[in-house]
Amino acid sequence: MKSDLDRLMAEADLEAIVVFGDKAANPYRDYLTKRSKAQGSVFKRRGEPAIFVVQSGMEIGEAQKSGLQVYTLYDFGSSDLAKQHSSAPDLYARDLFCNILRKLEITGRVAFFGVADINMSLVQFAGLRDCLPDLEPVIGGAASALFSNAYATKDAQEIVALKEAGRLTSQVVNETADFISGHRASGETVVDANGVPLTIGAVKRFIRLRQIELGLDDPEICIFGQGHDAGIAHSHGEDSEALQLGKTIVFDIYPKLTANGYFHDMTRTWCIGHASDEVQAAYDDVMYVFHEAKRTFKVGQVTSTYQNMACDYFESKGHATARSNPGTMDGYVHSLGHGLGLNIHESPFFRQFSEDVLTPGNVFTIEPGLYYPDRGFGIRVEDTVYLDNDGTLHTLTDAPYDLVLPLKG
Amino acid sequence: MKSDLDRLMAEADLEAIVVFGDKAANPYRDYLTKRSKAQGSVFKRRGEPAIFVVQSGMEIGEAQKSGLQVYTLYDFGSSDLAKQHSSAPDLYARDLFCNILRKLEITGRVAFFGVADINMSLVQFAGLRDCLPDLEPVIGGAASALFSNAYATKDAQEIVALKEAGRLTSQVVNETADFISGHRASGETVVDANGVPLTIGAVKRFIRLRQIELGLDDPEICIFGQGHDAGIAHSHGEDSEALQLGKTIVFDIYPKLTANGYFHDMTRTWCIGHASDEVQAAYDDVMYVFHEAKRTFKVGQVTSTYQNMACDYFESKGHATARSNPGTMDGYVHSLGHGLGLNIHESPFFRQFSEDVLTPGNVFTIEPGLYYPDRGFGIRVEDTVYLDNDGTLHTLTDAPYDLVLPLKG
Repeated sequence: MKSDLDRLMAEADLEAIVVFGDKAANPYRDYLTKRSKAQGSVFKRRGEPAIFVVQSGMEIGEAQKSGLQVYTLYDFGSSDLAKQHSSAPDLYARDLFCNILRKLEITGRVAFFGVADINMSLVQFAGLRDCLPDLEPVIGGAASALFSNAYATKDAQEIVALKEAGRLTSQVVNETADFISGHRASGETVVDANGVPLTIGAVKRFIRLRQIELGLDDPEICIFGQGHDAGIAHSHGEDSEALQLGKTIVFDIYPKLTANGYFHDMTRTWCIGHASDEVQAAYDDVMYVFHEAKRTFKVGQVTSTYQNMACDYFESKGHATARSNPGTMDGYVHSLGHGLGLNIHESPFFRQFSEDVLTPGNVFTIEPGLYYPDRGFGIRVEDTVYLDNDGTLHTLTDAPYDLVLPLKG
Repeated sequence: MKSDLDRLMAEADLEAIVVFGDKAANPYRDYLTKRSKAQGSVFKRRGEPAIFVVQSGMEIGEAQKSGLQVYTLYDFGSSDLAKQHSSAPDLYARDLFCNILRKLEITGRVAFFGVADINMSLVQFAGLRDCLPDLEPVIGGAASALFSNAYATKDAQEIVALKEAGRLTSQVVNETADFISGHRASGETVVDANGVPLTIGAVKRFIRLRQIELGLDDPEICIFGQGHDAGIAHSHGEDSEALQLGKTIVFDIYPKLTANGYFHDMTRTWCIGHASDEVQAAYDDVMYVFHEAKRTFKVGQVTSTYQNMACDYFESKGHATARSNPGTMDGYVHSLGHGLGLNIHESPFFRQFSEDVLTPGNVFTIEPGLYYPDRGFGIRVEDTVYLDNDGTLHTLTDAPYDLVLPLKG
């Protein structure tokens, strides 16, 4: 967790870290600045508080809400450099970065993180050798995993945020089920009281508005794929398509709390009105793996154990898996889950060869699925869970697992 | 514009470009993939169509909507590498990147772009020397400006999108004015029919919902700063604060179209009910510069001309400027405008030392402002405009410039 950063820096023999920051969404910066609205980079020497360097005086008000010490680029000579390099933004960025590192005495073994413009960052990085010979950039190895290791376990404050994200996201899913259920059928098509077909676009609009009203943010809205699209795990669905009875709908929703950026991730698969025997059988296979994983998650276990358990079971039922047939588009095509927090995907990972070990404070998804695009269906069921300090598993998602969604309209 | 990329690559003597892509918002990738929902990187050799390499088969459906040729990481040996480097994600990323570049025959002078994880990108970048000695990474210089130069002029399709963004954003601002006007005053506080104070949070909620309903996306919602906060150009305002009569409100809104990612950017300053003489005088100074710039924008002119014009005028009226007093928090503290498109800030820039030249196809903001946080007010007025092929200036923003917003409730 966050309070481990200094220890992890010591273990990786790092004297300082730099978190590059520009306008882009940046979980690293959010982690250190309490998701500040200010643009800027973060510099931290081991054992010392982080320092937030923002664009200009205009950002100071927002930046100070982070609780960090704040500087602006002016403090490092940005006006002179802007004049000197008026037609060379690359040289401006390079020299300014160098000034900051020198003045903040960032030296020795330093690792670089963040989400930022690659071209400018490479320019800044390449300039270090000449400008700061005492700075030794550390690339790859243990240092690379610094944030990943910290992210993997959540502190009490983060758990509060993740619970809230789960509560609100579940509410959106349950309201969406009610919204759809309130419609009726005309033949095999779902229609409203006036007989107008209910489209995926209309459902997504409902979802989006409820998310916003509840303080959830999700620019991608969600995955809402029907039939063949449900069979392609990451297809987002076609807005113009009307909802049909008996087709599987994979509804995967992963918003974050607007206030602090913490994600929730959950998926339900619905067949409106009725489900075929083929779909029901595949659904039962998915739910077996889902519950079996939940029953057996245990602190100290290697995560790949569970991915292998899932593959064993699916293969025994005649499904292809990413293990038996790498790159398959049919059967069980992905991994069993992933950690989440300020990143929608972070440690621990549940891939076939993952060596992550389940630890108190882990928050992660469990999401077995089966995909048969050519047979026109796909299934995935996903909850977000967490392991508390006693090793007890708690489910943060709260929505029914029923496959068939009846129409009551 | 986009069709200039091959020419610009030739001018910078580049044989290929790589656009790093992961989950992060990435205008470079959006530019080349029509804002694909798929995660992935783009590789382009000069004179050849771009190639989109996405995570896995799950992304293919979404990726193909880009119109580009699509590969998945499996095509470059990701399964074998995942096995080989199961506990070293850095080595996995490094070797996979190398495999892709080799198989796609990306060689010679290559420049790197995109928005991505800095740590992993540095690992991938550092691995190139050993793995691909024939690849010469180009860092900084003319190559750095490749996308920036292409972005600066918009093609017909982009203008359509930018007009639409302007129409819808203006609609949100005009509806917000009506929403506020529908309230009444209780003393100096704006209240609803039941006497409940209207807070900035409530106004932002209204704005957010209207944005979503109109197909606009803006995770930051907007700047809506009142009084002292209006005096700090990038303060977002306090949600809990009630709207007050006679205080300036700086309302700066910059959403993008959800469908294609093109931005609009506009600002209005309102005083509800009445404005003081001091504020009105400053407002008149801002509007003078605003109209004078609009009147004199001309193809072929260097953009800094206009920033200097703005500084000349403001200084003549006794205001400090970023030119007379670099780093000032009072007076005219920023630049006159900036280009926008898939980036909220891109070329042309209107800074004091900018050497950008106005060109047909430029789309940019004009946004003079005056800030006096200690006197409790700030002012900014901003439209987005574009220069057509005939050099005629068109305003894409459509909202009144009245300072005083009367209450009708």
